[in-house]
Parts: sequence; C-alpha cells; structure tokens
Amino acid sequence: MEQGKKNMKLKTIGEFGFIERIAQVLNADIPSSFLGIGDDCAVIPLDGSRSLLITTDMLVEDVHFLRSKISAADLGYKSLAVNLSDIAAMGGIPQCAFISLGLPSDVEVEWLDEWYSAFHTLAREYDVAVLGGDTTKSPDRLVINIALCGFANTDHLKYRSSALVGDIICVTDYVGDSAGGLRVLLENIEPDASTEFLLQRHHRPTPHLAEGQWLSKHSSVHAMIDVSDGIDSDIRRIAERSHCGAGINLDAVPVSDSLQKVAQRYHWNVREMAVTGGEDYCLLLTVDASGYPALARDFEEYFRRPLWAIGTILSPEQGIQYYSENTTIHLNSHGFDHFQ
Amino acid sequence: MEQGKKNMKLKTIGEFGFIERIAQVLNADIPSSFLGIGDDCAVIPLDGSRSLLITTDMLVEDVHFLRSKISAADLGYKSLAVNLSDIAAMGGIPQCAFISLGLPSDVEVEWLDEWYSAFHTLAREYDVAVLGGDTTKSPDRLVINIALCGFANTDHLKYRSSALVGDIICVTDYVGDSAGGLRVLLENIEPDASTEFLLQRHHRPTPHLAEGQWLSKHSSVHAMIDVSDGIDSDIRRIAERSHCGAGINLDAVPVSDSLQKVAQRYHWNVREMAVTGGEDYCLLLTVDASGYPALARDFEEYFRRPLWAIGTILSPEQGIQYYSENTTIHLNSHGFDHFQ
Repeated sequence: MEQGKKNMKLKTIGEFGFIERIAQVLNADIPSSFLGIGDDCAVIPLDGSRSLLITTDMLVEDVHFLRSKISAADLGYKSLAVNLSDIAAMGGIPQCAFISLGLPSDVEVEWLDEWYSAFHTLAREYDVAVLGGDTTKSPDRLVINIALCGFANTDHLKYRSSALVGDIICVTDYVGDSAGGLRVLLENIEPDASTEFLLQRHHRPTPHLAEGQWLSKHSSVHAMIDVSDGIDSDIRRIAERSHCGAGINLDAVPVSDSLQKVAQRYHWNVREMAVTGGEDYCLLLTVDASGYPALARDFEEYFRRPLWAIGTILSPEQGIQYYSENTTIHLNSHGFDHFQ
Repeated sequence: MEQGKKNMKLKTIGEFGFIERIAQVLNADIPSSFLGIGDDCAVIPLDGSRSLLITTDMLVEDVHFLRSKISAADLGYKSLAVNLSDIAAMGGIPQCAFISLGLPSDVEVEWLDEWYSAFHTLAREYDVAVLGGDTTKSPDRLVINIALCGFANTDHLKYRSSALVGDIICVTDYVGDSAGGLRVLLENIEPDASTEFLLQRHHRPTPHLAEGQWLSKHSSVHAMIDVSDGIDSDIRRIAERSHCGAGINLDAVPVSDSLQKVAQRYHWNVREMAVTGGEDYCLLLTVDASGYPALARDFEEYFRRPLWAIGTILSPEQGIQYYSENTTIHLNSHGFDHFQ
C-alpha cells in the first residue's frame, strides 16, 4: 500500500501503530450506521431499537498465559469472562459464543474437558449459548479465539467516544487486585487468605454485566470502557476517542484490603499497581457532574457497593494528569515518579 | 466430566470424537429455535423473517498453510473466502468480518499490508464490512482466526440435515482442482497454463455466494453444504445429519480439462482427487428428483454452467457407495480400490 517499507519489521512501527493505520483504512469503508474498530465491541444496527454487538479475543500460550501457571478450568472461565466484559462495557446483553481452539498434541482430554466445563458453566450463568467454533491442531502452542455476540438497545449504547469535559470519572470496583494476583503467581508467594483472594481475582474476574446494563439505562453516564489494560491505558482510550484529557486523583482510586495488606508486606507500590495493573474487568465510566450524586446513590443502593469517583474529564490540552494530596504526580514508563 | 480418562491424549479418542461429545453437551443447552454446532454456520433467529448466521475458522501456520508456499495476498484472500463459502452453503448474505491475528516477530509490515489488502479487496467485492478483531503476538507460528456474520431469510435457509431418500446429489462446479493445485505446489511441478490454473483454484477459491443465494430460494433444494474437505467427507456429513445414505456415480463427477491434462501427464488418479481432494469451496446439494430437471435448466440459464448431477440419496442402511460403469467401487483409507 505504501512505499519505502520493504523488510520493515512490525516492531519498527509498533503493533499499535500498525493497527491504527489498518483501522483507518477499514473503518473508512463501512456503512455509516455501523461501529467498527475502536471500541469494546463492533455495533451493527438491526432495526429501530436493537443493535447486534460483536467482540473477539485471541489468547496465545506463552503470550497471554502460561499453561503451567493456570488451571484448565480457570483458563476456560477467563477466556469467556474477558469477552463478556467487552459486552458489559457497551451496556449489552450477551447472547452466543464461538470457540476456536488450536490444540498441540500434548493437550490431554481431561484438560480439555475441564476447560470446556468451566467455559460452559460461566456461559450458562449468563444465558450465553455456545453455538460453534473450530477445533484444529497447533504445532506447539495452545491458541484460543473467542467470538461473542450480544444485543443492546441502540439508544442505551455507551461508547468510548462520548466523554465530556467536566464529567466525573468512576470505577465500579477495586482495581489492582488482578495485577497483585499475577505477582503472587509469578513470584511464587506463599499462600494465605489475602494472596488467595488476589489469585482468585486474577483467574476468575467477574464481568460487570449487571452494572453495565444498569448504567447504560442512565443518560447521565456518557462514556464507558472495561478495565482490561489498567486505568492508565483505558482512560487514554476514552481521552483519545472523546478528544479530551483526564485528571485522576490517586487518593480516590479504590484498593481492596487484601491488596493493601499483601502490598505492605512485600513493599509493592500499590497505587501504581492499581492504576497500571490491568485485567480487573470492572468498568471505567464518565458521568455528567450534575447527575453523579443521584446516580452514585442509586448505584450503591442497588449494588451495595460505591460507584467510586476517581477523577474528572479535562480539556484535551491538559492531557492525562495524576495527582495526590493536591500535588501533580508524573507517570513515566517505569511507573510513578515522586511517591512511595 | 467422565471417569477413567486421566492422562488420555486427544489422539486416543480422536479430534472428531472429542468434538462430537462436546457438541452434544453444548447443543443440549441452547434455545430450541437456534442452530448450534453441526452445520456450516450457527443460526440465530432475529425476527419473523430474518436470521443471523455466524461462522468462524482458525488457520494455523504449518497445519493449514506453509508461509513459504503461499503469498501474503493469496492467504489474505483465502482466509476470507473459506468463511464466505460457509455463508454461501446456508444461502446467506455475508455482512461483516472480524480478524484475529497472532503474529510472530518475523512477520514484516509489507507482508501484513499485502494480507490485509487482499482480504479487504475480497470483502469489498461482497459488501462485507471488516468491523474488528484482535491483533496480538505469537511466539513462532502465524495464527489467523476469522469470524464472519451474515443474514438470511429464515424460510430459505438450507441445512445439512434435510436431504431425503431419492434426492439427486449435485455440485455447482468442477471438483479436484484445488487438490491438484496443492500437489503442483508441494511437488514443485513445472509451471504451464494448466498448472497455473490449478494453483489459482487452490489459492483463490471462488465462494459460491450467488449460487447459494439463488439455490436457497428454490424449495426443490433440500440439503446444502460447501465442499471444504472433499465430496466424500462432505456427503458423509449430509448423510449423518439427514440419517440417509448416498450413491455417487464417479463417471458423473465433473473434472476440469486442466486437471485432466495435468493428471494424465503425472499419472495422478484424477477421480480419487475429485472425490477426496477438498478445498474446492463449491456447493454440494441434494434436490428433489421431480424438481431437478427444471432447476438444472434454470441454473444453467442463469449461471451459464451446469448443475451437475453426481448421484442419489439412498436409505441409511445402504451407506455411502461409489460406482462407475454400473460397478461398485470401494473407497478405503488409501483411496479407491479396483480402478485406475
């Protein structure tokens, strides 16, 4: 398509740079009522009131998981849960799943039975029909691709692109637990009740489908995304699509007692983990400031859990800012500067 | 789920045996109006007249393709074409595609651009919107998963399960060319016009979407499937789902002049290739015997190509039979016995 890129390796322009370029070409070519690459799900309007949502996710062994570090059942659960979370982020109701598996010859029947059983149990919990897929050989690595479809009321859909300056930024759960669980796993930390909690949060994230559907019915909710790569990455996605900036108050980011406890013991930087950790699969949303108090009250009454306010949408020139006790904190590629 | 299968390798019960068992569990749990695992696409009824079709397909390097033997553009084309063929087999109209790619670090930007460009060109040809997907790293093998959605008039859908004893079995194109192309490729056969034709048929199969849509409107067409694994495998799928047998007249199976010519030169068993070769991606269908003459006449008038009659649906006890010049021929795992 372009000149002067012979023998150019993908890492030279970066995976995200490449996807961004391809997305522009592909998105230029779709019907105007469709939503293509760039949000949690693609959206295809079906009739006046209903839209079809589709999301797909590929998990490759040794890139996304280590077979020695996760049970077949946990992997089966998580393979579906992360896709359910994408449907939750748009305010949709999941409907049917398609499983593609590339299987190395050393995978045992018992392992596969456990994988399918956990996937199917979670599917049933949310009335998701497993309607098909493809099972094939793979030379050495296990590869899993899940495609998930759902439906939503078109008027209630929430996008990454609809945040407005002045909105309150909220999360629907504690963040950082999953990053803590991963660290427990990789650093072979001795088990106790707190580390077990973190492991559970890493292996069995709860998709916030009920929260997403409830929030989507409220017009005071503007933009929504699920926390897959961490608040820092995901608020940048909202900021980019909504052409805005964001200020996050680190003192307000909710962290569980278990993470606090384990972080203190092993001298982890808990606030950094909470903001950059990822794989929490709760929802990050922006709410009209005037509507926030009533929404937060109703949310807490319904879900028995706060709708935590962690910051404000700023103008685009202000970029992404972090602060603590009224002091600006800088986040660089090595984490936060200037604090614990 | 079951006892007594500790450490049982997948190859012990066979990939198909495993899929069959899982399909029974999953299909038992879906709404009765849905069609799950077991046909070319899954079917989800949307309203009175329209159904959503979904198919998904995983291609793994060194299992489904050799990167040294297929160009990026041909692979991009074929990745979409094989899924379009599944929509064609149900009589549907394709609508939107989702691309998941697992990329090893040695894949170059130029290669990817060519892959996407060919995929996108074919997508545009059939008004398919590429709406999303997932791009991720893979340690060494390239992995491609395509999910494709389409729509169909619910009353016109054609299934594998609706063949009736006495139906005429038909194909919509020559078969065996793709198998010939693969052999040209693997045996490094010297190129000429005939071998180039076979290669083109192997790398750039034409999905029979127009044929599938046209045929689906005719009530004399009972069962339909696309020829992905070869007539022998695919007629067995119809026979299994429709609880019937089938007799195939080998003298009537249509073979191209190019395949005839190359097969003669290299002493290939052309009829075996035509029946067991696979990857032809034309349609295999069964037609009510009394309706066949009119259907075949109208098909030929519309498509300027015959609707070849190659056999008859038999009763289940009769199984799958092949005959030539009124003599029964036996097909075993090594191919046909008793003939050239």
